[in-house]
Amino acid sequence: MNAAIVGATGYGSAELIRILSNHPYVTLTTLISSSKAGAELREAFPHLSHLNYSLEEGDPESLADKADIVFFAAPSGVSSQWVPSLVEQGRICIDLAADFRLDGSTYRKWYKGEPPSDFWLSQSAYGLSEWFAPSIRKANVIANPGCYPTAALMVLIPLLKQGILDGDSVVIDGKSGMSGAGRSVKQQSLFCEINENLFPYQVGKHRHTPEMERYAGIAGGQRTTVLFTPQIVPMNRGLLVTVYGPVAKGWTLPQVREVLLEAYEESPFVRVVGEDQVPRTKGVQGSNFCDVGVYLDERSKTVVGMAAIDNLVKGAAGQAVQNLNLRMGWPETAGLQGFPQYP
Amino acid sequence: MNAAIVGATGYGSAELIRILSNHPYVTLTTLISSSKAGAELREAFPHLSHLNYSLEEGDPESLADKADIVFFAAPSGVSSQWVPSLVEQGRICIDLAADFRLDGSTYRKWYKGEPPSDFWLSQSAYGLSEWFAPSIRKANVIANPGCYPTAALMVLIPLLKQGILDGDSVVIDGKSGMSGAGRSVKQQSLFCEINENLFPYQVGKHRHTPEMERYAGIAGGQRTTVLFTPQIVPMNRGLLVTVYGPVAKGWTLPQVREVLLEAYEESPFVRVVGEDQVPRTKGVQGSNFCDVGVYLDERSKTVVGMAAIDNLVKGAAGQAVQNLNLRMGWPETAGLQGFPQYP
Amino acid sequence: MNAAIVGATGYGSAELIRILSNHPYVTLTTLISSSKAGAELREAFPHLSHLNYSLEEGDPESLADKADIVFFAAPSGVSSQWVPSLVEQGRICIDLAADFRLDGSTYRKWYKGEPPSDFWLSQSAYGLSEWFAPSIRKANVIANPGCYPTAALMVLIPLLKQGILDGDSVVIDGKSGMSGAGRSVKQQSLFCEINENLFPYQVGKHRHTPEMERYAGIAGGQRTTVLFTPQIVPMNRGLLVTVYGPVAKGWTLPQVREVLLEAYEESPFVRVVGEDQVPRTKGVQGSNFCDVGVYLDERSKTVVGMAAIDNLVKGAAGQAVQNLNLRMGWPETAGLQGFPQYP
Amino acid sequence: MNAAIVGATGYGSAELIRILSNHPYVTLTTLISSSKAGAELREAFPHLSHLNYSLEEGDPESLADKADIVFFAAPSGVSSQWVPSLVEQGRICIDLAADFRLDGSTYRKWYKGEPPSDFWLSQSAYGLSEWFAPSIRKANVIANPGCYPTAALMVLIPLLKQGILDGDSVVIDGKSGMSGAGRSVKQQSLFCEINENLFPYQVGKHRHTPEMERYAGIAGGQRTTVLFTPQIVPMNRGLLVTVYGPVAKGWTLPQVREVLLEAYEESPFVRVVGEDQVPRTKGVQGSNFCDVGVYLDERSKTVVGMAAIDNLVKGAAGQAVQNLNLRMGWPETAGLQGFPQYP
Repeated sequence: MNAAIVGATGYGSAELIRILSNHPYVTLTTLISSSKAGAELREAFPHLSHLNYSLEEGDPESLADKADIVFFAAPSGVSSQWVPSLVEQGRICIDLAADFRLDGSTYRKWYKGEPPSDFWLSQSAYGLSEWFAPSIRKANVIANPGCYPTAALMVLIPLLKQGILDGDSVVIDGKSGMSGAGRSVKQQSLFCEINENLFPYQVGKHRHTPEMERYAGIAGGQRTTVLFTPQIVPMNRGLLVTVYGPVAKGWTLPQVREVLLEAYEESPFVRVVGEDQVPRTKGVQGSNFCDVGVYLDERSKTVVGMAAIDNLVKGAAGQAVQNLNLRMGWPETAGLQGFPQYP
Repeated sequence: MNAAIVGATGYGSAELIRILSNHPYVTLTTLISSSKAGAELREAFPHLSHLNYSLEEGDPESLADKADIVFFAAPSGVSSQWVPSLVEQGRICIDLAADFRLDGSTYRKWYKGEPPSDFWLSQSAYGLSEWFAPSIRKANVIANPGCYPTAALMVLIPLLKQGILDGDSVVIDGKSGMSGAGRSVKQQSLFCEINENLFPYQVGKHRHTPEMERYAGIAGGQRTTVLFTPQIVPMNRGLLVTVYGPVAKGWTLPQVREVLLEAYEESPFVRVVGEDQVPRTKGVQGSNFCDVGVYLDERSKTVVGMAAIDNLVKGAAGQAVQNLNLRMGWPETAGLQGFPQYP
Repeated sequence: MNAAIVGATGYGSAELIRILSNHPYVTLTTLISSSKAGAELREAFPHLSHLNYSLEEGDPESLADKADIVFFAAPSGVSSQWVPSLVEQGRICIDLAADFRLDGSTYRKWYKGEPPSDFWLSQSAYGLSEWFAPSIRKANVIANPGCYPTAALMVLIPLLKQGILDGDSVVIDGKSGMSGAGRSVKQQSLFCEINENLFPYQVGKHRHTPEMERYAGIAGGQRTTVLFTPQIVPMNRGLLVTVYGPVAKGWTLPQVREVLLEAYEESPFVRVVGEDQVPRTKGVQGSNFCDVGVYLDERSKTVVGMAAIDNLVKGAAGQAVQNLNLRMGWPETAGLQGFPQYP
Repeated sequence: MNAAIVGATGYGSAELIRILSNHPYVTLTTLISSSKAGAELREAFPHLSHLNYSLEEGDPESLADKADIVFFAAPSGVSSQWVPSLVEQGRICIDLAADFRLDGSTYRKWYKGEPPSDFWLSQSAYGLSEWFAPSIRKANVIANPGCYPTAALMVLIPLLKQGILDGDSVVIDGKSGMSGAGRSVKQQSLFCEINENLFPYQVGKHRHTPEMERYAGIAGGQRTTVLFTPQIVPMNRGLLVTVYGPVAKGWTLPQVREVLLEAYEESPFVRVVGEDQVPRTKGVQGSNFCDVGVYLDERSKTVVGMAAIDNLVKGAAGQAVQNLNLRMGWPETAGLQGFPQYP
């Protein structure tokens, strides 16, 4: 099948191109970039100098002729304009931005922009592959999750579902490599400002907060309130969340580990780390794996959940392709069998 | 006055040598290293090739002839052997290890070693300069704090004292550059294992936990239970703690900031960051500053405290010299007026 | 076909496992490690926790039952012991170490060890795929090149062949990420010793010097003398060589570029960068590409050749698999079609 | 004495502020920034939040009232406008940009801008402290050297002076951390574009080339032709040059080392590394040291000179203060006695 990418010059798109170019059932035909239309792909991405793609302008109507599947790697606010027309023409849309992740009023409040209509929101499935596969398989609009919510929900949902964790008071401390900030050109993103530096940002105000709460509630079955503090870590890729909350009485660590092991028994991309192990970002780098771990602290009656992903793969392009595989009925791992790079 | 360092080949010692060599009132006379005795300092530290020091073996008796002040930068378990004799001979000891930080039974439990006697523990002061200055000024044994406790207590103590934070349930998420792990030679500390990697370690079990709880209780005035998760971040220096706990009713963010500003009004090394600012490790790098910030989340009724230090300066050698200054009645900033290096 | 790796716990082996596990014609059956025999692979490489391999002891006799192809990722001196028996049993050996790269007396001088016999040396082909393919296709012992020689020869050989560069006086300035130093545990390889550091090592004495000279002579057709200075750069992967020499009269930059373009017209893994471009290590990271560029300085009559590779892929495991593909008559790119990771 | 900085928001200026604030004989009174006039210093540099400076607009006339000494850390082209008026009013100017380094026609050719008049060029001294001290002591305009020329000339000059190296054909391979590129905001300077990346730039065309040639000629006593290739290395600070050239007959390594040792016998900031040592950038980080080393390769008749500096200290702000000290007759090391930071 033919695929296109809208918003082709960011880091998420570089990963989509890498993955789709080696996907057994997909041909990448079209790259749309409003800001660089007319340029060659290799000008934006010299590491892809062996490829011959021109960056194009486009619109939903003409794009439908070139692609069966459209990935949106553009900023939030673009996909909501293109998706209705594409889906009405029978195309499948996978959106890496936030447009279709929240209900309309929450989107307005946190993103300060106009959401898609309620009808189109109702057509979309949330693309956290491991927990929303049934609706993903049927949807023509898939709202790929944010990078932090992907990691956080992977530990939160099973703990909430079993009542191990009380959703009333969840603290999520996130740490991300710098590619999560995208490729936009700002003084605060210069190498010398980030290298050998570590700091929190948007404390309590990051837009991924309502996304975590919404899907923790839906899939975890508990109304959940999250305090989320993200932090920038001086590395390119990799994201770790550490999730804290009061543990319900009676649970032991082996029991809690068993809950995780069962939850992900059938999931090819989730690895529950060994009892004396912790998730490490380098252990998943370049792959679609999510490594999860858990610790139960008797002293403070707290459960600590940990999850590590590559923010550009399982946190973006990789999960988008995993969702495509689910939607098309292809093997879930098609195009995603590369191992982590180490070191 | 003459100073000596016991355990002279680690990273903390490199900082002590850097600071003491430019201290207006101190002459560094003697460097003790049991493992490298007989070698020249420049073999251990080529960056100090302009200095002429030999690394010596030593014992408390002979050392008292050469030094009025002895810094211990050796592993835990060494200072407790040397301190009694040195102090009986009228010397001042500043210990960067953990021997004198805890009561005996807690030390035994967390450090699996023999603590100093209760008598000698009673002679020591805890060297968190900003909060324990009165006892530091009188003590001949100063237990320099651990790096994580230094940062964590700097936000915890004022919040606990004012009852803003409930000590029953404090979560501390710590992140540290790799120099905190010292210079010992292990596969897991190799460049390629750490670079572009990020991971938690000793979750819930780190030895700094009881130290935080003890001094939060003493100086904060509340019995405090801490869950502490440290994480390794791929950089040399810098440490950030993010402290979470339920906020007491009625407090507003401006009020909480005011509490911090008042607490540190007279402290030359603590900077409360602006309302829209966050502490950043690079903002203190190479200096004895501790930058602190706070956020109050109405949604989740949580207070978030943040503190950044250079783990080798305010978290080790710098605070040790600050304590020496307090003890000797010298200006608190003597030898410590260097600014952060940026970038 | 079944493959084995001898020396399975180093970084080169991690890459071999990554590549071979997704190779369409190879099954990796056996991992030999003398130092960790009996352990599970995931103990050495937690990032491969989804694989079930035990690390085995072994000997050439029993190994021949399990593998048609044997890769040696062990230190120099091992393969020379195993190869004769394996080849006599009809197996194909690809050696990532230096045993089979040099003539016996040069090996003795630079490696201070015993080389294979002249007979066995005569059975081997040098595995610089782009320049020695005819002999690689027929050999049962393939001496995979060193990482620096791979990059250096890729620019040297075409320039020497055309007489653009005078082999009498070639300066090669090499820079490599730290994975080139392997995984052995030394103080000088600790994260804090390498991060934010840059330095030359083994100036004029690096063992890759005679390898460069030998194969520049054979494939470039000129007796060549090389001064080689390698430098460590604080990054995991990536290797750049900058090659300098006096340019022969009459050549212009477009002509020299044309020589490179023609030399690599048919090579799927060599990309000659555009006229205003330079090779960058990140542009090849994780891939088997070698990016080459050239500059001709009129002022100083010097030609500057540049080549960038991923030292663990084209500089080690990737080229080893490329050589296997050549040897077996498979498509040269089988298993090696992954794109560079960016960023 | 009172000092001012023109161009106060770049990385070189941050170092000047750090050094001058602890200088025993200087008071920093005025910070000029055309682009950020009206802002507080702490907005540009949050790491200096404890300082109270406003960034000002200014002109040479009013500035002369506030400062006896003016440092220019602005881009090339600014100081030539300000210096004449300031010097006529009796002020001392130290220029970290290139305006006063070259003769007029060379400046025009390489910098594409208008140089100062020949009269004003004739008033200036080149500020390579170790080799031009006599003229620095008398000049009211000091042209602080570029970072690469500082390191390169420190090995080149003594080798040329003694005829060890033939100036006809010198290759200089430079490597620099990213702070050398300044703080200007470009996509190619983003963290993710530089981290884990290594590449040459401006091959054969870097503006420091004629500066190296000019002062190698003047102080080395030989007309010198340089081919210079700089490379970006993923670290904040640190610069290494590796200098190659044909060695004259008859020299041995011990003799060549002796030449260096004698050349720098009296220089407090130049350390000739031990025979088995190499200069390392981390060994000088944060200090005004320049570490130099040399190797003589019998096989290829080549001499290899190496020099490491902190590009922002000895390569910029530190040497500027060293020059001020020389000019004022203060101790050469005043304000510059800080040791390297390690690690």
